Amino acid sequence: MRDLSRDHRWLSINTATVRKQWSLDRIIEECAKRGIRAISPWRDQVAHVGVDHIGKLLRSHDIELSGYCRGGFYPAPDKAGLTAALLDNRKAIDEAKQLNAPCLVLVVGSLPGALNGKADYHDIQRARSEVFDGIAASLEYARGVGMPLAIEPLHPMQAAERACINTLEHALDICEALDPKGAEHSFAASLGVALDIYHVWWDPKLQSQIRRAGKDRLMAYHVCDWLTPTRDLLNDRGMMGDGIVELRKIRGWVEEAGFDQYCEVEIFSELDWWRRPGEEVLQTCIERHKTHV
Amino acid sequence: MRDLSRDHRWLSINTATVRKQWSLDRIIEECAKRGIRAISPWRDQVAHVGVDHIGKLLRSHDIELSGYCRGGFYPAPDKAGLTAALLDNRKAIDEAKQLNAPCLVLVVGSLPGALNGKADYHDIQRARSEVFDGIAASLEYARGVGMPLAIEPLHPMQAAERACINTLEHALDICEALDPKGAEHSFAASLGVALDIYHVWWDPKLQSQIRRAGKDRLMAYHVCDWLTPTRDLLNDRGMMGDGIVELRKIRGWVEEAGFDQYCEVEIFSELDWWRRPGEEVLQTCIERHKTHV
Repeated sequence: MRDLSRDHRWLSINTATVRKQWSLDRIIEECAKRGIRAISPWRDQVAHVGVDHIGKLLRSHDIELSGYCRGGFYPAPDKAGLTAALLDNRKAIDEAKQLNAPCLVLVVGSLPGALNGKADYHDIQRARSEVFDGIAASLEYARGVGMPLAIEPLHPMQAAERACINTLEHALDICEALDPKGAEHSFAASLGVALDIYHVWWDPKLQSQIRRAGKDRLMAYHVCDWLTPTRDLLNDRGMMGDGIVELRKIRGWVEEAGFDQYCEVEIFSELDWWRRPGEEVLQTCIERHKTHV
Repeated sequence: MRDLSRDHRWLSINTATVRKQWSLDRIIEECAKRGIRAISPWRDQVAHVGVDHIGKLLRSHDIELSGYCRGGFYPAPDKAGLTAALLDNRKAIDEAKQLNAPCLVLVVGSLPGALNGKADYHDIQRARSEVFDGIAASLEYARGVGMPLAIEPLHPMQAAERACINTLEHALDICEALDPKGAEHSFAASLGVALDIYHVWWDPKLQSQIRRAGKDRLMAYHVCDWLTPTRDLLNDRGMMGDGIVELRKIRGWVEEAGFDQYCEVEIFSELDWWRRPGEEVLQTCIERHKTHV
């Protein structure tokens, strides 16, 4: 297991962590200033500044991506909606490629309309089927472009609105169905997973499924912490060390499986970290990365 | 599949649903008045009125129990705490027997102290091991008394504070380990599950695990609904029909597996149903039981 206590070379900042404080160009500059070598930006943040400009900024500051957030949201109430989602995912894949991301993270979606409080249908099996077909279509395009796709299983409390893939096991079932490992000696997965401990820490099968995933499928690793109490189903994530997740144990499992890339800090925190100065948030991420990740 | 649309003979009221409005003796009277044949009371409500008195009231109103809430909460930071939990569970088993409950529902507990915001330890594997040992000990006592125990898998969003058993699959693994089905012709399970759709509706393995559970292990069935948005991790459950759960589909799976007992309505609702008159809540439960369960 890697010793992360001496520096923060394997720290990446998911840019949602300071999204309320700074625009993306400023985030890149602030990260560069602190020797943070990688970020994972969100599409809306990129769009706000412009993808070309962001690409230049990243290159000039020698910052790379640990992922690109996000594709997905495949289910829709009708054919037009399904088609629009596929087109939007192509665009996301192209942007990820332009920014040289190692993978496009997929938050796959679930009951369409639920996010706005009124689901167009209630059949989660239908949503899962539309997600499966959607990933299959995106994967074909992504392979052509050369952009791996990483399914992010979301916490079951977000199963209605954001993702109907809620366990690592389910995500890996889909990876194996759509991107089977052939007999060839070296396998480069085009479909894998983004493992965010916030979503999966509770799973009694976590260790065995991480082993099953292996290095090939583990495309991104996100950290934060689970607070007790948790006051909101989306935006009350904790800073590493402030909650109850056994971060080091889980990283041990992930690295045992071969993962050797960035640990990406992704904290949505309406009541705490989004209210603090961005400088303090980044500094705390650097410290906690060394002491708690 | 049973037709529940014509009457409410298979409706049971979990008494937490109107706990803010009425004490338990009043709840029993109000249920009797409306032809509700079963309830599932909570231990603190029973203690408040007195178990002997509640027993008499139930008999005089010809109301039976669909379960007794609840035993569990096994994990503790030290030996004294573990022992105290076992003793308390014996007491719960005795009360369940005295009230002639079909089962004692177990909310098994998780990281001790987490419910008060400060976990004594963070090792969820340790909590799971303490839960396993605790259920084993309770089971021995419960068998002597003749009281089946029903593990309730809780939603993963309650994994830190309330229960470290969060999927039906995990609960059934424990049932099979501690209460294996022998070769005898007729098997009477002493350990099974209480299936609450609020906790499990999202699970992609739900249908297959319900089939696996079978009639013997399905000891209780709880209904309510999942709201979008859900504003609180504990007390924002919806009335059947107000959310996105496919209640009838899931009841179909449960009945296909052989379940033929009460559908118990359990709604914790700080922002809505606990604020309405109890009469309105019970009347709505009766109506929605017929139209949506």
